[in-house]
Amino acid sequence: MSAQSYLSRGVSPTKDDVHAAIKKQDKGLYPGAFCKIIEDVAGDKNYCSIIHADGAGTKVIIAYLYYKETGDASVFKGIPQDSLIMNIDDMICAGAVDNFVVSNTIGRNANRIDREILKVLIEGYASVIDELKKYGVNIIMAGGETADIGDIVSTVVVDSTVFSRLKRADVMDCDNIKPGDAIVGLASYGRAVYETEYNSGIASNGLTAARHILLSSEYKKFKETYSSTIEDDKVFSGKYMLSDKLPNSEQTVAQALLSPTRTYLPVVKEILEKEKKSVRAFIHCTGGGLVKSRNFGKNVTYVKNDIFDVPPIFNAIQAAGNIPMQEMFQIFNMGHRMEVYCEKEKAENIINISQRFGVDAKVIGRVEKNEEGKNKVIVKYKDETFVY
Amino acid sequence: MSAQSYLSRGVSPTKDDVHAAIKKQDKGLYPGAFCKIIEDVAGDKNYCSIIHADGAGTKVIIAYLYYKETGDASVFKGIPQDSLIMNIDDMICAGAVDNFVVSNTIGRNANRIDREILKVLIEGYASVIDELKKYGVNIIMAGGETADIGDIVSTVVVDSTVFSRLKRADVMDCDNIKPGDAIVGLASYGRAVYETEYNSGIASNGLTAARHILLSSEYKKFKETYSSTIEDDKVFSGKYMLSDKLPNSEQTVAQALLSPTRTYLPVVKEILEKEKKSVRAFIHCTGGGLVKSRNFGKNVTYVKNDIFDVPPIFNAIQAAGNIPMQEMFQIFNMGHRMEVYCEKEKAENIINISQRFGVDAKVIGRVEKNEEGKNKVIVKYKDETFVY
Repeated sequence: MSAQSYLSRGVSPTKDDVHAAIKKQDKGLYPGAFCKIIEDVAGDKNYCSIIHADGAGTKVIIAYLYYKETGDASVFKGIPQDSLIMNIDDMICAGAVDNFVVSNTIGRNANRIDREILKVLIEGYASVIDELKKYGVNIIMAGGETADIGDIVSTVVVDSTVFSRLKRADVMDCDNIKPGDAIVGLASYGRAVYETEYNSGIASNGLTAARHILLSSEYKKFKETYSSTIEDDKVFSGKYMLSDKLPNSEQTVAQALLSPTRTYLPVVKEILEKEKKSVRAFIHCTGGGLVKSRNFGKNVTYVKNDIFDVPPIFNAIQAAGNIPMQEMFQIFNMGHRMEVYCEKEKAENIINISQRFGVDAKVIGRVEKNEEGKNKVIVKYKDETFVY
Repeated sequence: MSAQSYLSRGVSPTKDDVHAAIKKQDKGLYPGAFCKIIEDVAGDKNYCSIIHADGAGTKVIIAYLYYKETGDASVFKGIPQDSLIMNIDDMICAGAVDNFVVSNTIGRNANRIDREILKVLIEGYASVIDELKKYGVNIIMAGGETADIGDIVSTVVVDSTVFSRLKRADVMDCDNIKPGDAIVGLASYGRAVYETEYNSGIASNGLTAARHILLSSEYKKFKETYSSTIEDDKVFSGKYMLSDKLPNSEQTVAQALLSPTRTYLPVVKEILEKEKKSVRAFIHCTGGGLVKSRNFGKNVTYVKNDIFDVPPIFNAIQAAGNIPMQEMFQIFNMGHRMEVYCEKEKAENIINISQRFGVDAKVIGRVEKNEEGKNKVIVKYKDETFVY
């Protein structure tokens, strides 16, 4: 799969169109921060605000297919977590680790997504919020909108918008990343102490590719789950049924693809409480994967030369699609979805905090000076080197 | 068209599913207010906050069809206004008339909605915001998310989430509506001083019905514009092409269906500045039309016995679909989309303010005491009486 064939499935991995459309928009108070930060809504010069939007994307299609096969609506329960954490884990990179206010926008085809599924989705929000409360995080559900827009949406869109207000002194600005810093990767897979099941690490990025590459053409009968703009040979072109075992894993393909997006909030919150002085920045490896960091920091090369072994879900996608590893690293998180940039000497402390939460962590690389005028990312994995 | 046949087009006019799913959710600080109001995000007991979500719904399909016929991407320019005003005009009913912070979520099929359209959409937000600045309203664009989710979204979803913070003393609570109050209707059609063109009054509700009832089966060739779950005889079952003249109007069908949702913000802002003491509540007649008010206030019957003449767009829909008027009033605003509930003696002042903005206004009815334990709405129009 080339980037071109990824685009042919209706997804732009580099988001060129979006960047072109928003390039005139104001970058906010801290142009180097991971999220756009605006003036405090309450007008306090010591504070600032973030309002952030994201969603579960096409991951809902996996839940829908499983539901169609089994009739089990509860399969949608992880989707609100995907939608919410895709926001919150971006926001924690900017330093917002508490006092979140959430609103959602659900757009559905009411003939396919019934009242029972809607209830699972809405209760799913409450359940993530309750779980995070146990870690001292205050999240308020402010409301939301559910629209019946079946002529646009074939199944369901689950988007969230999250607001937070934070002290300017607490803002994390990626411009603080310095040559010599260590990059600590926090694993995206495994089972954190705040998770109830093993997590494959897939999160909510690259699901369009993953779905079509892994799943069998038997799913083509559910025409509502793919666009007619995708070439036929790219639709469900894989060999797996959802109930099949994922190779080298205890999980089924369904379990692996539906693992809810892990949040790093409890871990990052404690890192900031205990090690704030030694941390420069956090990067959430979402769209763009390990290359995401290239957009942040100044005059640096990110050398990621000791990453985690790639988890089974990503290996399965790579093998099934015969995707060059060069592209895999640009689409998927490949094993760590959060990067902590910190003083080299303090990396061990960060790792210890993460591991206490059951989230594996290690130094995956370092920051080097770069005088080419354009940031670079170098990934080394199993004797191969990939440069971006 | 019965409510049943409306549902068969994939839209629930009464939103029973949604109400069932959210019934356990907390109603906020002012359960009687038009929007859910939460504790102030800055913790000030004299303030409170609203975070509100809504979107342009299926109105984008009209723009898309016009674009497919003409190649003119600029037709999407009114859509952000629809998306934004559907939020803001709800929020003004709760008393929030300034200091809005906006985030959007755009979900698109990138093979159909290209970079040019995306640019029109994103610039459209800036242009509404600039226009409202002229009326002393401060709106900040905080950011947003554009997702390529072509396997779910066949064209484009344009949703907005809007935050505002207001003084508790400024909250408008519909529980203040009293028997004896006058109901002033603010026209949804015509041309306000802050509008550049004549407005049909359609706004962003009932568009699924309007589109399929008015438009010709020639549009069936654009299969991406309707769900396969709608029975074939209900898809584009009308007689109009978009370029046809709307009967009894200077507008074409395209112009009438695409008239951007009028905001009442400048009018309501001035009403609150000059006549706050005499105003009890505002009701935004969106989904539910003239029956929307039934959900607000306590032990009251709303008698709407002198409404505006129904504007041409709604008459055309009614005639083309042979829709009982009983249902028309429950789906569409039918001529006024904002209701001001006020002391009878002060109605004239409210009307004068509105008319100075070029928005026609008149007393359309009154509030009566109701001891049946359930609010009622009675609409009288041209010798017919409709009870809800």
